[in-house]
Amino acid sequence: HLSKLPNIETTIFTVMSGLANKHKAINLSQGFPNFKGDQKLIDLVSKAMNSGYNQYALMPGNMQLREAIAKKFDLLYGSSYHPESEITITAGATQAIYDVITAFVRADDEVIILKPAYDCYEPSIRINGGKPVSIQLEAPNYQVDWNEVAQKMSSKTKMIIINTPHNPSGTIFSEADMLKLQELTKNSNIIVLSDEVYEHIVFDGEKHQSVCLFPDLKSRSFITASFGKTFHNTGWKTGYCCAPKELMEEFQKIHQFNVFSVNHPVQKGLADYMQDPNTYLGLSEFFQAKRDLFLNLIKDSRFQFKPSQGTYFQVLDYSKITQEYDVDYAKRLTIENGLASIPLSVFNENKLDNKVLRFCFAKTDETLKQAADILNNI
Amino acid sequence: HLSKLPNIETTIFTVMSGLANKHKAINLSQGFPNFKGDQKLIDLVSKAMNSGYNQYALMPGNMQLREAIAKKFDLLYGSSYHPESEITITAGATQAIYDVITAFVRADDEVIILKPAYDCYEPSIRINGGKPVSIQLEAPNYQVDWNEVAQKMSSKTKMIIINTPHNPSGTIFSEADMLKLQELTKNSNIIVLSDEVYEHIVFDGEKHQSVCLFPDLKSRSFITASFGKTFHNTGWKTGYCCAPKELMEEFQKIHQFNVFSVNHPVQKGLADYMQDPNTYLGLSEFFQAKRDLFLNLIKDSRFQFKPSQGTYFQVLDYSKITQEYDVDYAKRLTIENGLASIPLSVFNENKLDNKVLRFCFAKTDETLKQAADILNNI
Ligand SMILES: CSCCC(=O)C(=O)O
Ligand SMILES: CSCCC(=O)C(=O)O
Repeated sequence: HLSKLPNIETTIFTVMSGLANKHKAINLSQGFPNFKGDQKLIDLVSKAMNSGYNQYALMPGNMQLREAIAKKFDLLYGSSYHPESEITITAGATQAIYDVITAFVRADDEVIILKPAYDCYEPSIRINGGKPVSIQLEAPNYQVDWNEVAQKMSSKTKMIIINTPHNPSGTIFSEADMLKLQELTKNSNIIVLSDEVYEHIVFDGEKHQSVCLFPDLKSRSFITASFGKTFHNTGWKTGYCCAPKELMEEFQKIHQFNVFSVNHPVQKGLADYMQDPNTYLGLSEFFQAKRDLFLNLIKDSRFQFKPSQGTYFQVLDYSKITQEYDVDYAKRLTIENGLASIPLSVFNENKLDNKVLRFCFAKTDETLKQAADILNNI
Repeated sequence: HLSKLPNIETTIFTVMSGLANKHKAINLSQGFPNFKGDQKLIDLVSKAMNSGYNQYALMPGNMQLREAIAKKFDLLYGSSYHPESEITITAGATQAIYDVITAFVRADDEVIILKPAYDCYEPSIRINGGKPVSIQLEAPNYQVDWNEVAQKMSSKTKMIIINTPHNPSGTIFSEADMLKLQELTKNSNIIVLSDEVYEHIVFDGEKHQSVCLFPDLKSRSFITASFGKTFHNTGWKTGYCCAPKELMEEFQKIHQFNVFSVNHPVQKGLADYMQDPNTYLGLSEFFQAKRDLFLNLIKDSRFQFKPSQGTYFQVLDYSKITQEYDVDYAKRLTIENGLASIPLSVFNENKLDNKVLRFCFAKTDETLKQAADILNNI
């Protein structure tokens, strides 16, 4: 049987977490917290199971949860979505991204993606017969050259995928970036897919630039988001997707035959939990303290960095230490030094190697200290 | 934007459950129990959350759960799958079906489906550019004419989808059916997708004919299955998929970019729960008692039937009562008589109307008695 994805290997996340387990290394590779989320949320999910929320949720999701999301958008951005027709709960943000791409991308359509890019975009485009058109952002600033984007746009461009705060680089888009994107796509049929899974994790007083803040841009955009990243439960695999009604209708046509609906007790627990906006408002401070702890500890190490502006990832430049290929170095660091990270080249165009590794700082302070000790001794 | 699924309406399940809620009707439409599953399983999922199973499961699923599934196959069929490479946990059986179809079906490939067919097969084929080739099974026996299947097979046939026990008809495949299918697909490149979500619900001492019982057939087959149907928690949206290694590899390439992995605490809870095979062995007796209760109560009504052989659905022929189109009659029965069901025409080729409705008997005895009262008064 011919493969639709002939060149796909095991994801780097599986590889590095596997290697970390095997060598009992500290695992700062795959992006998940090593501490427990709020006990209150766990108890609310248990309560939902015990009070009978165990059968199919509505296809677009539990209505109370959709209302909580609408309220959140109102509160944070003053720009909301209708719970009835513009919000769908998904089996994680990855699944939301897959549905968006599948709903619109056809054979020979082009999709512009900004590299380094999270590794699900490209295969999801290819599965649908589309063609990824990559724009490489350069370390250490990872700024988008919008002229280059304009040059790569064509009549075949069906979609542009953005991601702010940006995984893996930890950079954020400015308002100027968003306005440029809005201008470039004005009066076009291009769909913007805005991956905002780290929406609540932005540092140094900066503001998250959601597509929903820009009315014209919003009219052609999807937002995909994650409860797992926000509430420290990546293993619950629950996320959501927002878009104007006409776009959401096409999304739901795919969604209803892909997963139909998602875990109901988790949805009900989240809905009850999110009644208190404080559950998602303090996240930037929480993770900024972790970033600062980590970076302070390694400031005299031979690793170089610009502090992450958002997400719970920090990239470190190791070019002063070795010129090894980043995948090899990440593996060696895991096996020999007991610290696992993610090499950035796997997210780059043509596996471009800038000698940078990504470290996840969604870890206990204790773990971050142990990791810093290792880095300081290299 | 051109729609990939231009003619898709809201699923009949959403329509009928919505109508049932609106008119406070007894809801025997959408297939889910109205009683709670085992408290022990709920407690095990809570325990998993409380003991830290809240981050990403492995992409193919929690290993202990995959081992429990492998053990189940061994026990029931003496034909197992390797937990390491031949089993994947999915976000429900629908999502497993979607991944199987997406992994293999390309533009212009033909997929043979037997109508009445569960409503996700056809759109999933179309989303991938494939062409459903339908074979209509006739009420009341819904037997497959394998000569017709042979005639409709061509060099373009990529896949054949079967479903035993069969939703919505409640019929089951015989060993002879399976042998015919094995023979017809021998030495071909055709993939068989065997939807076995009701594997544990087979009545009157009959045996479930899993594709895994037929070694040659097994070598080109996928099994998709559901924990929700087996453990009375359809809203948990967890299922699984089995296939020989080389086929499973292609499945996982899609799966890892569609959902990546699924709810970890549910997987861990299920893994612990399934250590005791009695948790899934008594299901046929349990549902046969419900079928018998329901059919005994309505045996003198004007509805005609052949007892269901499997699944938790019973089809009733209403042709003695009215000649109305079944969708209209199902709606009228809901609105005027307070009893919701599923009209079979929506699953048929060209919406063929045989004057039959499907009733879900996964309900408390009390609910089944109330439903029977309504049917007896018509
Ligand atoms: C799906 S595993 C990857 C987790 C993640 O978001 C990351 O590490 O970037
Ligand atoms: C996904 S809702 C449909 C539930 C079901 O399996 C059925 O009613 O046939």
